[in-house]
Amino acid sequence: MDTLKGFSVPLTPLGRSPLAMPPPWHYSSDCLVIEYWADASAIAAVLPPGVTADGNSAGRAFFWFLDWQFTASNDEITDPARYQYREAFVLLEALFEGQAVNYCPYIFVDNDAAIARGWSQGFPKKYGSIYQTRSLSAPGPAAAPLASGSRFGASVSAHGERLATARVQLRANVENPATVFNRPTVMRRYFPQLAAPLRQRPAPVDELTMSLTDNLAIVDVWAGSAELSIPEVRGEELHALAPLRVGQGYRLGMAYSVTDLRVLRNYSKAGG
Amino acid sequence: MDTLKGFSVPLTPLGRSPLAMPPPWHYSSDCLVIEYWADASAIAAVLPPGVTADGNSAGRAFFWFLDWQFTASNDEITDPARYQYREAFVLLEALFEGQAVNYCPYIFVDNDAAIARGWSQGFPKKYGSIYQTRSLSAPGPAAAPLASGSRFGASVSAHGERLATARVQLRANVENPATVFNRPTVMRRYFPQLAAPLRQRPAPVDELTMSLTDNLAIVDVWAGSAELSIPEVRGEELHALAPLRVGQGYRLGMAYSVTDLRVLRNYSKAGG
Amino acid sequence: MDTLKGFSVPLTPLGRSPLAMPPPWHYSSDCLVIEYWADASAIAAVLPPGVTADGNSAGRAFFWFLDWQFTASNDEITDPARYQYREAFVLLEALFEGQAVNYCPYIFVDNDAAIARGWSQGFPKKYGSIYQTRSLSAPGPAAAPLASGSRFGASVSAHGERLATARVQLRANVENPATVFNRPTVMRRYFPQLAAPLRQRPAPVDELTMSLTDNLAIVDVWAGSAELSIPEVRGEELHALAPLRVGQGYRLGMAYSVTDLRVLRNYSKAGG
Amino acid sequence: MDTLKGFSVPLTPLGRSPLAMPPPWHYSSDCLVIEYWADASAIAAVLPPGVTADGNSAGRAFFWFLDWQFTASNDEITDPARYQYREAFVLLEALFEGQAVNYCPYIFVDNDAAIARGWSQGFPKKYGSIYQTRSLSAPGPAAAPLASGSRFGASVSAHGERLATARVQLRANVENPATVFNRPTVMRRYFPQLAAPLRQRPAPVDELTMSLTDNLAIVDVWAGSAELSIPEVRGEELHALAPLRVGQGYRLGMAYSVTDLRVLRNYSKAGG
Repeated sequence: MDTLKGFSVPLTPLGRSPLAMPPPWHYSSDCLVIEYWADASAIAAVLPPGVTADGNSAGRAFFWFLDWQFTASNDEITDPARYQYREAFVLLEALFEGQAVNYCPYIFVDNDAAIARGWSQGFPKKYGSIYQTRSLSAPGPAAAPLASGSRFGASVSAHGERLATARVQLRANVENPATVFNRPTVMRRYFPQLAAPLRQRPAPVDELTMSLTDNLAIVDVWAGSAELSIPEVRGEELHALAPLRVGQGYRLGMAYSVTDLRVLRNYSKAGG
Repeated sequence: MDTLKGFSVPLTPLGRSPLAMPPPWHYSSDCLVIEYWADASAIAAVLPPGVTADGNSAGRAFFWFLDWQFTASNDEITDPARYQYREAFVLLEALFEGQAVNYCPYIFVDNDAAIARGWSQGFPKKYGSIYQTRSLSAPGPAAAPLASGSRFGASVSAHGERLATARVQLRANVENPATVFNRPTVMRRYFPQLAAPLRQRPAPVDELTMSLTDNLAIVDVWAGSAELSIPEVRGEELHALAPLRVGQGYRLGMAYSVTDLRVLRNYSKAGG
Repeated sequence: MDTLKGFSVPLTPLGRSPLAMPPPWHYSSDCLVIEYWADASAIAAVLPPGVTADGNSAGRAFFWFLDWQFTASNDEITDPARYQYREAFVLLEALFEGQAVNYCPYIFVDNDAAIARGWSQGFPKKYGSIYQTRSLSAPGPAAAPLASGSRFGASVSAHGERLATARVQLRANVENPATVFNRPTVMRRYFPQLAAPLRQRPAPVDELTMSLTDNLAIVDVWAGSAELSIPEVRGEELHALAPLRVGQGYRLGMAYSVTDLRVLRNYSKAGG
Repeated sequence: MDTLKGFSVPLTPLGRSPLAMPPPWHYSSDCLVIEYWADASAIAAVLPPGVTADGNSAGRAFFWFLDWQFTASNDEITDPARYQYREAFVLLEALFEGQAVNYCPYIFVDNDAAIARGWSQGFPKKYGSIYQTRSLSAPGPAAAPLASGSRFGASVSAHGERLATARVQLRANVENPATVFNRPTVMRRYFPQLAAPLRQRPAPVDELTMSLTDNLAIVDVWAGSAELSIPEVRGEELHALAPLRVGQGYRLGMAYSVTDLRVLRNYSKAGG
């Protein structure tokens, strides 16, 4: 009889060591987001089966930087050394069965619990070092208030190589963020087989999934001018999605809870 | 038609970004190992179904610290910023279907590629910071040669908390390491389901596995006296396996390749 | 003729590589502060010549955790990977020539530019890993709003060992923070001599200094209940200042600029 | 009466917390070294007063990567989490009063104690992340033995930006390393003044110094072919010393002790 506890490895007697315990998982974040356009064929090349580039988007993508705070059922909010984390990812506008979606091909975090929760959803997280300028309440040249003219920077690095650098200068408040952020995010949930006799068969977990966000709140949205660079780095393919053109930059707050996941397609089954 | 490449996430057009590409994976390491005895009931409590404490072992366990070098088919050996890593784990002497095995309940690494490869085998890796004294060739008080009287230290921390600290003083060369290191390692390979309607069903991946090591080489084995402490840390259960008694310390080199994995039992199928 | 630029090492032709360029330096921070009482003789033991324990304070001390944002004259605010940093320090209530001051014996930061600026002022900074719960604008269980009942945590670690852990639960806004934070901070500015013939002579830099803060702003001050632990760690003496009793916890914003430093006493001169 | 102990800050009652205690300091290291030629005018531009480019060198420089082990009088060798560290620096061939020397304009380490000891000597250390391929004793594709054909890589990054990447393939053992490594290293020891009324006067510490290494041992020297790249990075000037041409690569072991420092010139005195 198996009495070990945990949503993720390691499964343990008391459920304190697992990287993740079962949801609900609660999140709140500051976000710096850059709208840009990438090469449409590079976007098509990274999409999984059944997901296609959105012709109306002409290569539109969003690069996100996030300063996350996480809590669940065990007072994680008061243990920031383990549960506060930073993240960067790219979203590509795409279509699935006619629905406008965002697909997440690359994502970086600086926290192992975030990797475990992310992989369980389909976010293909790797380890990175992420920073963004914060907006602080004590006034002065270092405060970066939410006000016209304020400047923010952000970056993501992995293993000591800079993968992306962004800058945003705020211009105006956005009254209706739904005009900008309105597509659901789909991902590929994947876990491999290592046993040699089975490696030619479909992976045990290979699904197209959709992120489900309860109680989504998007607040304090500001827009402005933006810069974004994604240099070529050996051992990474992110630069294939480098900007051909950069659109607006956004700075916003976002919160939601996760309790569920939608499986859109199981690639491991026949016809995947 | 799916042409994306990768053994692990992220699957990509060129196979450069995935945390892992398919094996063979080649490893070489310096190792500091402490033999010790833990509470037998604490060992029993962390073992998965079908694995039982080895009554003859009376709680015997080994705490390993490793300075790994990894390479595969893409010249990883010349990219140490991405592929060199450090690891610490505990092995518990146990039985599976009458066979003497070591079970690995906890393991820490400082590298994301090592997490991806590890999870695919069943090693329940979390992120940690690991150090061990090295034996360097240039002589002097800082060299720690492989010689009687040399002293080595090692430690593993996670999220800024020290999980284990060890010290070893070498006494003599061990001619036949097979007398010490002779049990295969078994692990629990596990990947969860997040979709709410499916969470009551068995996890999609839940297996008892055995590590397979090709071309295993264990060299330059020295033994000596040892100290080991595993303090209690909030958010971890490792200290349940703290030493009641410490045996010998070992310092050795180990190399092998991984191309396969043995699945001993599939817990997700009926009767698991 | 020396045309190299820089306030700190390395001095360079263009003044881009130096860890610090000349002030003004601008700072803004979120702060979590714990009032506590330490052993009065342990406080006395760490004070420099001419600084004495404040008998009226009975061992009162403050443990600070700070999430800093820094900028100067080169757009540092948009380069958070280099210039955003976290800090933790202890302040001890003391007297200097009859004036009530705070003395800073220990301080940890996670950034090398902050070490360079800090040493130049007299802050004896070492490298550490510091975290504090943030108050985010997007509402939900992970937001920690500035409101009665909100809970915050903070910690500082060095080299994988936890040096201090704190928790605060907010109760009420503090209308007049000057009742709490009203002593100037004094430090010991010290830079050694290594040349053997000169090591018996006074160090080339050994001064008692006072931090000067222009345009000081302290905002959004909340007080509440607090916990603080400072465990004993090998290789550190911080635990000699562990709490005998814990007072209130505070959460606040603080900003100021640095352009100058007051030298209170030069210990290197006769009679130091 | 001042009874506080320490070679560096923080000065403390017991001398356990200081980043450095007085020498002797003992070092041993694995080293990967790349000989190259930089722009001679860029070299001249970074040299301090009295040090001139060596016309016979035509811009010759060496880029070093080091995996250090350190110990002193307090058993530091068994505390690798605090005292083992990695370093990278560039040495420029130069002349001082007719003597052939190497000047060190840039150096990066991943350890705060190494920063404190380095600054006291004149090494202008900043924080970086450094890696080099190791030569391990357990044989296999991941071992990188000291043998003809073995390949090594190395890199240094700061704040998530790659500053230099090197690769070396060994060809042959070097019998007499003195033909390669035979110049003393000179540095600029500098500590600034922050007090505004004094900032126009010479810095309190501004000296040209020479590193003194007791019991220097250079062992197991191999030479081979080499690659080196030093890309331009915002906020750094290292790339001004990028290679115009790359010479040989070396892999060696080096050990020495430090007990003293030679002051060649005091720039703070008249005529500096």
